[in-house]
Amino acid sequence: MTDVRSSRPLALTMGDPAGIGGDITLMAWRRREENSPCFFVVDDPARLAVLAERLGFPSSVRAIDSPEQASSVFDSALPILPVPADLDKAATVVASIEIATGLVRDGRASALVTNPVHKETLYDAGFRYSGHTEFLAELAGLDHAPVMMLACQGLRVVPVTIHLSLADAIAALDAEAIVHCGRVVAAALVEDFAIRRPAIAVAALNPHAGEGGHMGREEIDVIRPAVARLAAEGIDVSGPLPADTLFHDRARARYDAALCMYHDQALIPLKTIDFSHGVNITLGLPFVRTSPDHGVAFDIAGSGRADPSSLIAALALANDMARRREAVRAAVA
Amino acid sequence: MTDVRSSRPLALTMGDPAGIGGDITLMAWRRREENSPCFFVVDDPARLAVLAERLGFPSSVRAIDSPEQASSVFDSALPILPVPADLDKAATVVASIEIATGLVRDGRASALVTNPVHKETLYDAGFRYSGHTEFLAELAGLDHAPVMMLACQGLRVVPVTIHLSLADAIAALDAEAIVHCGRVVAAALVEDFAIRRPAIAVAALNPHAGEGGHMGREEIDVIRPAVARLAAEGIDVSGPLPADTLFHDRARARYDAALCMYHDQALIPLKTIDFSHGVNITLGLPFVRTSPDHGVAFDIAGSGRADPSSLIAALALANDMARRREAVRAAVA
Repeated sequence: MTDVRSSRPLALTMGDPAGIGGDITLMAWRRREENSPCFFVVDDPARLAVLAERLGFPSSVRAIDSPEQASSVFDSALPILPVPADLDKAATVVASIEIATGLVRDGRASALVTNPVHKETLYDAGFRYSGHTEFLAELAGLDHAPVMMLACQGLRVVPVTIHLSLADAIAALDAEAIVHCGRVVAAALVEDFAIRRPAIAVAALNPHAGEGGHMGREEIDVIRPAVARLAAEGIDVSGPLPADTLFHDRARARYDAALCMYHDQALIPLKTIDFSHGVNITLGLPFVRTSPDHGVAFDIAGSGRADPSSLIAALALANDMARRREAVRAAVA
Repeated sequence: MTDVRSSRPLALTMGDPAGIGGDITLMAWRRREENSPCFFVVDDPARLAVLAERLGFPSSVRAIDSPEQASSVFDSALPILPVPADLDKAATVVASIEIATGLVRDGRASALVTNPVHKETLYDAGFRYSGHTEFLAELAGLDHAPVMMLACQGLRVVPVTIHLSLADAIAALDAEAIVHCGRVVAAALVEDFAIRRPAIAVAALNPHAGEGGHMGREEIDVIRPAVARLAAEGIDVSGPLPADTLFHDRARARYDAALCMYHDQALIPLKTIDFSHGVNITLGLPFVRTSPDHGVAFDIAGSGRADPSSLIAALALANDMARRREAVRAAVA
């Protein structure tokens, strides 16, 4: 942990070039501090040079030929590894993800950080994954679903169901999915967060955790059996716990991550506590991947009004996680 | 607002005598400050004298014959208006509510504050209401449903559906209920909170507010039409808004109350922001009623470990609301 700059750099994807990815990337580089991790972005150097001028950071970008050059460039300019120049827009976005992921898988970059993409743009160009995460799972050759975690200072939440209507999320909830999330999260808390014996809290679906079946039976039929299975595997797990009393500061001190049953149950407390610094983490991949917890924000792209806080937090967390994972694996080996 | 003590006192019910109602009542009286509102509790003086001894507040209670005596007693002791002595436990709890409500309706007390009851105890004794609120609506002769609001510093939330399983809450959601809540809340914000032109935010049900129907249609079919009806009545209302980005500090500054579609959507942000000082308010009654936002806590009753913060906040808010309502009505008359 002593000399951050000497380690392998983080690989950052460009995201949708019409979004704020370029803005926040340049701003994150500008706001780097002595201990900020080194990163490079896989992007089009010409477009970033224009954007840097517009944002008032002239001459602050530099093309590199390989990730290994990033750390020598980083002190004076944002290192850019070029994407192939002859692609259309959607193909460029996808190529940036593929190149960055390949470099991380090959060990030439320490972790993957992704800028926001606009799925519709990619769909129109034939992209067939439902999002970044599914694409990365395919690139990594995974045979199980990755798990999404969102983290801010003092809270880590994991939505067991994600982009479904609330009615569909209730219908989709099953014990197998909760157990899978619990296993992946427990392993990640040890390996990526260096928590020796992590505690996992499992939120109930219904108000007052269903009040013994009077307000819904999912706690009895689905969640409790899943918690019992995780406990039987030796995981320190509690629940189902009423969700409304699970996220105040004293409650948060009792666990390292909360498994939530639906999108807003996870996202409401996280964004209420810390709207700007939330980080999206994909667990269960063979490499570390984080991303800022916001979208492309087309309306403010290029204006200088984007807030790079979440990307800066995503870069710092990816760096921390990659180092911890390395250290844990070295200790085990 | 200059001389608080000269005003009519607040009427406080006893709640379940096996719960923490007595503890927090005595503690709230002990922690009174110069500006704390005067209140009396409708309870059994003998039981409270024993409890006061046990908690280390000897000789701190005094029976009174009428609410009018409360303010002269309050400086030296907790004023207690006795409940009839010959009733069984459940009937005593109900009588306390009836007596306190009657005094408020007769204008001899300024507002009603209720200590927590245990519904099962009352049901076993033949109580036929689903809770305090429904009982009070009946005592008040209401022909419409009262509306529940929860408030802490910086946030007021109103769950449109309350004690239902999440699946039942989705099924029960209808435009009429949202419109009714919106009307009652808008009127209360003017009358009880002295907000001249209140802004109401309406939360979406589904993640990302349903993304234009891709993740649920309730926003399009139910919530948006309700918002349009409220707007057509001249109410400053916005929504449906994605719930995860509705409760951080900058978002909260944009509205005076948020209408939420289900229990935990309202309670998660409220209890995350301020676990101890939340107050439950019943809107739409012909008098002001608040209560602490917690239950009977049988396990710590009599131990001195109960936290009176929420009751203290409920007393202060009831006093403020009653004074504002009086002032607004005097200004209109």
